[in-house]
Amino acid sequence: MDTKKLGRQTVRFAHPPSIVGYGSAAGHMEGQGPLGHCFDFISEDDRFEEKSWEKTETAMQKQALSFALSKAGIKASLLDYVFAGDLLNQCIATSYSLRGENVPLFGLYGACSTMAEGLSLSAMLIDGGFASYTAALTSSHFCSAERQYRSPLEYGGQKPPTAQWTATGSGAVILSRRGPGPFLTHVTTGKVMDKGITDANNMGAAMAPAAYDTIRTHFEETNRSPDFYDLIVTGDLGSLGAEIVADFFRSDGVDLHKNYRDCGVLLFNPSRQDVHTGGSGCGCSALVLTGYLLREMSQGRINHLLFCGTGALHSPISTMQGESIPGICHAVSISTEKEENL
Amino acid sequence: MDTKKLGRQTVRFAHPPSIVGYGSAAGHMEGQGPLGHCFDFISEDDRFEEKSWEKTETAMQKQALSFALSKAGIKASLLDYVFAGDLLNQCIATSYSLRGENVPLFGLYGACSTMAEGLSLSAMLIDGGFASYTAALTSSHFCSAERQYRSPLEYGGQKPPTAQWTATGSGAVILSRRGPGPFLTHVTTGKVMDKGITDANNMGAAMAPAAYDTIRTHFEETNRSPDFYDLIVTGDLGSLGAEIVADFFRSDGVDLHKNYRDCGVLLFNPSRQDVHTGGSGCGCSALVLTGYLLREMSQGRINHLLFCGTGALHSPISTMQGESIPGICHAVSISTEKEENL
Repeated sequence: MDTKKLGRQTVRFAHPPSIVGYGSAAGHMEGQGPLGHCFDFISEDDRFEEKSWEKTETAMQKQALSFALSKAGIKASLLDYVFAGDLLNQCIATSYSLRGENVPLFGLYGACSTMAEGLSLSAMLIDGGFASYTAALTSSHFCSAERQYRSPLEYGGQKPPTAQWTATGSGAVILSRRGPGPFLTHVTTGKVMDKGITDANNMGAAMAPAAYDTIRTHFEETNRSPDFYDLIVTGDLGSLGAEIVADFFRSDGVDLHKNYRDCGVLLFNPSRQDVHTGGSGCGCSALVLTGYLLREMSQGRINHLLFCGTGALHSPISTMQGESIPGICHAVSISTEKEENL
Repeated sequence: MDTKKLGRQTVRFAHPPSIVGYGSAAGHMEGQGPLGHCFDFISEDDRFEEKSWEKTETAMQKQALSFALSKAGIKASLLDYVFAGDLLNQCIATSYSLRGENVPLFGLYGACSTMAEGLSLSAMLIDGGFASYTAALTSSHFCSAERQYRSPLEYGGQKPPTAQWTATGSGAVILSRRGPGPFLTHVTTGKVMDKGITDANNMGAAMAPAAYDTIRTHFEETNRSPDFYDLIVTGDLGSLGAEIVADFFRSDGVDLHKNYRDCGVLLFNPSRQDVHTGGSGCGCSALVLTGYLLREMSQGRINHLLFCGTGALHSPISTMQGESIPGICHAVSISTEKEENL
């Protein structure tokens, strides 16, 4: 086992699995943002021709998975496992998107870290010899999230400047034992971190300690420095949470300003789009990964990426009961170089 | 890979991981049932001295994990990964039970199949060389489930005879690369199955097709017959759902009546306890496994167990929107014999 575990939280794969397909389906506003040209599909009206926001999420997941399978050149029947989850209570976007697909499913709940969690487990099952093909799939929708977590849109509630904007979109990634890359070389699995933030309109601050903890642990256990990566992205802390992470590292004497970004900041254009501190939701980091980052890797503009999914593990009930907001962060190292570790 | 995969859904472990600890914390009514003598802890008042039902679930999870770690003779700091989830929106019982534990977490959503899902992934990560110790953890609470899925207790709602009773309790299982057994030898991972049942008060019928599909696939892919097992348990279909599963097999010419039971039926005494068709909830199969089944295995009364976690993957929103109820079932084969498969 020792060749695979670099520390308690970090695994290095003996045979790094390859990403062989990825797909994205985005909402209208996401399509108007700076990454709008990257997505496989952009809805004109955020409805995807469905009768409810929840059904729209299911439709987006189906589309994203379909694009990813198509690019991988395989059918769903070749998938050994799908790892999927979403933000809706009981993850119903996922159960309804997969009920016709005839694929073995491991349902996840990782809030906005779901894509990174799914990639981590996907890669472990492939490297462990349990799968040839897997998929990681997730989604979120602004309107279903507002209704469930805050107030129905018709209420017209306002948000403080520290709040984030739940992205409308879905992303899917297909992994394979063999392929041209990019490759998942390492994963660092996060712990639940809670530093006492109780403001559900400041989730970036609540999740930042988890992001810092996992990224720092990743550097320690891999013996890598931030410079190794062309890009380190968290998803999704927003601009305020990302500043807090950079501040934590700065107090360790580590400067992240050159190569650290947040998916919530990348997805929208703050001067034209009023998203407060940035995007959030499972769909946000999934869209940025499957729309933008993996394309940049395929075109050689990013060779080493540390993709760090961050999730806030609270609920409206826990907030009403006065609880603080626990966070988690899972980091996945993706590289255009294979680095066999035998 | 071929030595590990017996088919698309079934994995056979090269080095079957061992269960080295298990713990249970049960509610008052569960303690008065036929398995009441088996649990590590029984609450007198279903509150576990907490101020809300949600906090009670967290307290139960902490207790169950603590008992399991104690029996395994290890501290939480030795756990490489915890796989955990529950029924509460955003799985908050889990995030709050683990925020002080300093353990890497993969959050799951599998509804009442969560324990089987957690055992499956635990065993894969150990056999794959990524972990020495893992934990699978879940819980449910009658009162938090009533409030969230149906009506607050104060409403005094009645249920039709096909309904089930959400169990109050938590179970935890510690797996290890080495140990005296029992061993997880195979897992068969389920697909989302939906045969169009829309009655949220008849979830046994909604989940039965998933249970039948996974169990039948397990027999096909392992080339085993039902006779191989001393006991096949589903969890939790209740008496009606279990009859439907037996009926499905009967129409295939397979008689399950000798060695097939359901955890929802085992947990309560129907002549003294008014639970309609039986128990349900993530905590039900977790309690029956960690309270009763693993004790029976340790005492040699069960040598080969097929533990089949069943989950209904709907939500109150999907039901209100007229959707049918998708189900899933994950099967785990547990044996007192190691069966190395090199």
